Amino acid sequence: MQFTALQIAGMLNGSVEGDPQAIVTGLSKIEEGEVGTLSFLSNPLYTPYIYGTKASIVIVNNTFTPERPVSATLIRVEAADIAFSKLLEFYNQIKNDRKGISKLSAIAESAVIGESVYAGEFVVIGENVTIGNNVKLYPHVFIDNNTTIGDNTVLFAGVKIYSDNKIGRNCIIHAGTVIGSDGFRFNQQDGLNIKVPQIGNVIIEDDVEMGSNCTIDRATFGSTIIRKGVKFDNQIHVAHNVEVGENTCIAAGTGIAGSTKVGKNCMISGHVSMTGHITIADGTILGGATGVSKSLTKPGEMYLGVPALEVSKYRRSTAIFRNLPELAKRVDKLEKERKQI
Amino acid sequence: MQFTALQIAGMLNGSVEGDPQAIVTGLSKIEEGEVGTLSFLSNPLYTPYIYGTKASIVIVNNTFTPERPVSATLIRVEAADIAFSKLLEFYNQIKNDRKGISKLSAIAESAVIGESVYAGEFVVIGENVTIGNNVKLYPHVFIDNNTTIGDNTVLFAGVKIYSDNKIGRNCIIHAGTVIGSDGFRFNQQDGLNIKVPQIGNVIIEDDVEMGSNCTIDRATFGSTIIRKGVKFDNQIHVAHNVEVGENTCIAAGTGIAGSTKVGKNCMISGHVSMTGHITIADGTILGGATGVSKSLTKPGEMYLGVPALEVSKYRRSTAIFRNLPELAKRVDKLEKERKQI
Amino acid sequence: MQFTALQIAGMLNGSVEGDPQAIVTGLSKIEEGEVGTLSFLSNPLYTPYIYGTKASIVIVNNTFTPERPVSATLIRVEAADIAFSKLLEFYNQIKNDRKGISKLSAIAESAVIGESVYAGEFVVIGENVTIGNNVKLYPHVFIDNNTTIGDNTVLFAGVKIYSDNKIGRNCIIHAGTVIGSDGFRFNQQDGLNIKVPQIGNVIIEDDVEMGSNCTIDRATFGSTIIRKGVKFDNQIHVAHNVEVGENTCIAAGTGIAGSTKVGKNCMISGHVSMTGHITIADGTILGGATGVSKSLTKPGEMYLGVPALEVSKYRRSTAIFRNLPELAKRVDKLEKERKQI
Repeated sequence: MQFTALQIAGMLNGSVEGDPQAIVTGLSKIEEGEVGTLSFLSNPLYTPYIYGTKASIVIVNNTFTPERPVSATLIRVEAADIAFSKLLEFYNQIKNDRKGISKLSAIAESAVIGESVYAGEFVVIGENVTIGNNVKLYPHVFIDNNTTIGDNTVLFAGVKIYSDNKIGRNCIIHAGTVIGSDGFRFNQQDGLNIKVPQIGNVIIEDDVEMGSNCTIDRATFGSTIIRKGVKFDNQIHVAHNVEVGENTCIAAGTGIAGSTKVGKNCMISGHVSMTGHITIADGTILGGATGVSKSLTKPGEMYLGVPALEVSKYRRSTAIFRNLPELAKRVDKLEKERKQI
Repeated sequence: MQFTALQIAGMLNGSVEGDPQAIVTGLSKIEEGEVGTLSFLSNPLYTPYIYGTKASIVIVNNTFTPERPVSATLIRVEAADIAFSKLLEFYNQIKNDRKGISKLSAIAESAVIGESVYAGEFVVIGENVTIGNNVKLYPHVFIDNNTTIGDNTVLFAGVKIYSDNKIGRNCIIHAGTVIGSDGFRFNQQDGLNIKVPQIGNVIIEDDVEMGSNCTIDRATFGSTIIRKGVKFDNQIHVAHNVEVGENTCIAAGTGIAGSTKVGKNCMISGHVSMTGHITIADGTILGGATGVSKSLTKPGEMYLGVPALEVSKYRRSTAIFRNLPELAKRVDKLEKERKQI
Repeated sequence: MQFTALQIAGMLNGSVEGDPQAIVTGLSKIEEGEVGTLSFLSNPLYTPYIYGTKASIVIVNNTFTPERPVSATLIRVEAADIAFSKLLEFYNQIKNDRKGISKLSAIAESAVIGESVYAGEFVVIGENVTIGNNVKLYPHVFIDNNTTIGDNTVLFAGVKIYSDNKIGRNCIIHAGTVIGSDGFRFNQQDGLNIKVPQIGNVIIEDDVEMGSNCTIDRATFGSTIIRKGVKFDNQIHVAHNVEVGENTCIAAGTGIAGSTKVGKNCMISGHVSMTGHITIADGTILGGATGVSKSLTKPGEMYLGVPALEVSKYRRSTAIFRNLPELAKRVDKLEKERKQI
């Protein structure tokens, strides 16, 4: 893709200062700008870089007044940072603007496919599946029987969705993620592990994003539920019958055991472990690698450690842990002195 | 799928009380029953719900005597909970009853395929692979050369099995799991990491279930072995030359490093880390996120923490850890008083 | 595959002692040797096994002098262990010697494909992709637009590579690994999580190996970089804008958060968590399940624990942690005695 300064100014409602035919084919940071790239200047700390940058075009605030000559073509806008973000979105939309059903896909006759759908090579869609409008299914996606996918949702390459699940609108699910595999439940009987049939499903509401290689298990009975606006990083595991509340964000490698309910607006770091059958209050913040073995009931509280402690308590205890040998020596000394008394 | 009360009573050897033509298309909990669903009542604590449930059919024990009118059609059986479990199994069997080799699969001529096999779209089977009877291979499964799959085993979508491995009978392997990738072994030589060829394989015995996105590495030499009846949750990592003993259960996100031997009938929680070249005794219980860096030799013992401690010891130490600042202050006080003496 | 003693001696520049037509079809350890297998004797501790082994052929050092009769055919070489390693490499090369573009793959016309490339069934290659010479792409690999793959690189089954990434030469990437999914960055606005477009890419330099089901996110802007000679085990997560230095090895299940820079020649164990925006010095060694929340600046130092402590400090503190109840009792006693004074 290549654009002229004039075209970009048009997209951004900005004005060109310099060569309106200057061409860019990529983006750069202003301090690393190369010929043929577009950059932006918003933070005043970076102003010195504009006089030396090799970027061909720089987006600047209307208020920017150069103190020395600038070789780049300038595009002046109301807010350079927001304009640049807008450009990134355009760029991504163009890059991901795929349409059409590949002849190499396999779609059951009973499936209902919306308008403007993209289904890449070797996509498989099962019986009675419903695919909304503008859905994008990258190559090697598999959607099993009776599952529904809402409008505008994107499933990247190799996503596997078992039967009978519901995915909402405007969701993004990254490559390799598996939705609807069996919950992990066995009854012990005569020393053997007898599988408990897992006949529930997974419901993912609107505006959810999931990273790559996550696994979301179906409910034993009823539904595993990921509420509206939830964002998952990569390699997250969610067990059967879990519910994750609206707009909660979870970083990579975190696992949630069966039937646990996580509140709304939580911020959960990476490599966190949550045991099953507990409740996490709304707005809870969990630091990296925290291990939660009991319900956390105070909204908005931050925890760290294994087992999870309130962060101030954790920090105080950890500070002493680092100097435990010292503390032990002081006790030794007290004991010796006592004996001498 | 839809069934009448009469049909269900027939499957369960039960008797209908109410409308024998009542129709159900799904299942529900008795406290959440909707019209057109089937529920059951076994636990007496839930008895009050039967008088208000909207479920169209409820399975009850022969001994159940209603104290008020019940609008649902009843099916009376010997034991309502067992009957319901049996129904779930029927349901799952019907749902997963797939047969036939898709024309869109790619199967090497030298492969030997059993009877009543299902191979979905875009399945790839390599040279000299042997597939048992009643095996189900969901779309996008890949089985590389010389691997054998036992009777009745189910590989869900996108499972990848490298060459020369052996999977037993009655196994279930969920989507995205990888079996037989190279073990992680490098020799350091002149500052470089030189790969040690990994020419062993993976042996998975009968009745093993594995969750989604697990990774089981082949042995450097010999076999990585998962014994009969082992059950794995999702995202479990097993390194080269590990052996996991019969009927051991491992929850999600646990990793086992190279050459470690895990005993029989162990219960291992999620996010556990085991170092390499150690032995875990039969019946060992490991709590969530435990880190095991030494062999655990006492059968049936429970451990927690990093590094792993016997559970009673761990709990006592952790209780004091939470109050370490208090302990430190008491030592401060003792020191001050001593100085005053 | 089957070989005679004479053929093997030829490959290894060795001499046969016994039956030059002895045939082997597999490999074995000398203490477990079976008829029809090839073994080797290098470590003198294993010498007693050679007199009883059933292996048909054993590779031995030129200096080996049997004290009793040996039934196996011997192949004498300069160094038996190195010769055996060389054989393993031959074996692997033969096993993985695949060529040709499957008719069932889907390759964009604009893609540039090198010589002697293998592309298995249902491989998908996007627009403007460049594939080097001798590259091997196993079934179900997906490479999206504008990505380049260097000479001799092997992508195992189901690897998914998003658009605009660069993979170097001589790399090995195991099944199910995802490269180039979006970084996990959201801005909070009016209680919602607004996605930050991720328009950077991933650069993987030469001689990198990655295990199965890893996830490497693209940079928000610029590149996530995995330097030359890096080796990753399975299920590793690397976030946006991370850089991993040359020849660093990372074991399974480790996660690195956004913008962190890991030095050269580090040895990082499994299940390690690193927070974002920190720097890890060259040659750092991290034990299993270590949690790193601050930059580690001293090259070559070893750390353990959560939060990471220098190993000697960690071990001393942990030793006391195990006996904290004892320490607390001693403080109790001191307090009681003080009161009595």
